[in-house]
Amino acid sequence: MNIVLIGSGNVATQLGIALVNVGHTILQVYSRDINNAQTLANKLSSIAIDSFKQLDLKADIYIVSVKDDVLASLVSELPKIEGIVCHTAGSIEIDVLNAFNKHGVLYPFQTFTKDKLVNFSQVPFLLEANDEGSYVVLKKMAKSISDVVMEANSVQRGQLHISAVFACNFVNHMYRLSSDLLENSGLPFELLHPLIKETAEKVVSLSPRLTQTGPASRNDQMIIDKHLCMLKSNEPFESIYKTLTNSIISID
Amino acid sequence: MNIVLIGSGNVATQLGIALVNVGHTILQVYSRDINNAQTLANKLSSIAIDSFKQLDLKADIYIVSVKDDVLASLVSELPKIEGIVCHTAGSIEIDVLNAFNKHGVLYPFQTFTKDKLVNFSQVPFLLEANDEGSYVVLKKMAKSISDVVMEANSVQRGQLHISAVFACNFVNHMYRLSSDLLENSGLPFELLHPLIKETAEKVVSLSPRLTQTGPASRNDQMIIDKHLCMLKSNEPFESIYKTLTNSIISID
Repeated sequence: MNIVLIGSGNVATQLGIALVNVGHTILQVYSRDINNAQTLANKLSSIAIDSFKQLDLKADIYIVSVKDDVLASLVSELPKIEGIVCHTAGSIEIDVLNAFNKHGVLYPFQTFTKDKLVNFSQVPFLLEANDEGSYVVLKKMAKSISDVVMEANSVQRGQLHISAVFACNFVNHMYRLSSDLLENSGLPFELLHPLIKETAEKVVSLSPRLTQTGPASRNDQMIIDKHLCMLKSNEPFESIYKTLTNSIISID
Repeated sequence: MNIVLIGSGNVATQLGIALVNVGHTILQVYSRDINNAQTLANKLSSIAIDSFKQLDLKADIYIVSVKDDVLASLVSELPKIEGIVCHTAGSIEIDVLNAFNKHGVLYPFQTFTKDKLVNFSQVPFLLEANDEGSYVVLKKMAKSISDVVMEANSVQRGQLHISAVFACNFVNHMYRLSSDLLENSGLPFELLHPLIKETAEKVVSLSPRLTQTGPASRNDQMIIDKHLCMLKSNEPFESIYKTLTNSIISID
């Protein structure tokens, strides 16, 4: 298929690379900043543009992958497009693309960092489209890079996005806090690597209800008090420790 | 070496299996509950006991691996022992074993669940002993099952334990909350598996400062407000979302 990428951030970059690898053509990469567009275009043997006046109007699919808070205003600047226009955002309704005859959502359920290549084959793609024909085309494209493609409406996608905030963004923040604590103690973060890996691997084979360990899950007040004493007035560690310990104790 | 295991929980079970696998002998397994002792003793070709009167006094090492809040009282019931007595707790000082001539701490820095076998080779072991001779013996035993063995005093071990609470226990609680949210939406937790794996793998190759993604890290108030609206009055989700989002926004 002939595709235009609108955006050059983490999602656009990883998606573009995966699409090119399986034989699709990225006709153009748009970014407000021509240098960003050019960097990604070079990776994809594509053409960089920074104005919608240059937009190639013969593509099959236009993937709009930009920051959520600029999506609506950017979309309003687009010219009339005959191909399918889709966005990749978890928490934005399909309606934002109502101006286009054929439109949809292609939400890759993964975390993307520019410098860490993602293997898409197991990444779930949640799809939505305003008509059956567009859905079939988006599904064909998604299936070409992933084995896990399913339909989800805007409400389900929003709920999925919130769960991802907990399972990915908040998890990474816990890693960050843990790393800062260790650094203050003069111990290397690398010590935590086996624990981080095991915690993630375990929850994939068992259920998170069964894998909870630690002082809060045993309601071990002696250790909890000792930890709170060590974290006294050390924010945000003390209050997060309290909040999450109480939540673990009261959840079951 | 000849070893006696005092305790039959997750840590004792996994440690016992690893020690037997590399050729050590577990002379006895003690538990208050003889059935628990017997279950583990069977796995280790060992003998189950439920009274310290039966304790074999000729072992090289006695590993006390019981819940933190019963450790002190259990230790006070032990007879005079010539071998090295050590515990495996992150947040309990070495002094709790002062009654014994030779004593120490052997802290395996990992999360243990009975039904998930741990590969110990990369698990860090933090050691402490009251004399050089005991330290050498504990180090030899730890080295026989792990490549990562280092000294840590009781203060460092306590700090390491708190970081593990964040990087493992609180992380698992995030998985749990995420799983509950998905369940309420009729979506399977399996959808999150690739995201959970990627989040953990990424932080091991990059640093948690660089891998933070999501609405809070972009300070995207539109999405944050949308999520808070969807979580309204849904506790503990709403307050944890607020607390951690604010913490991410203000950390850098």
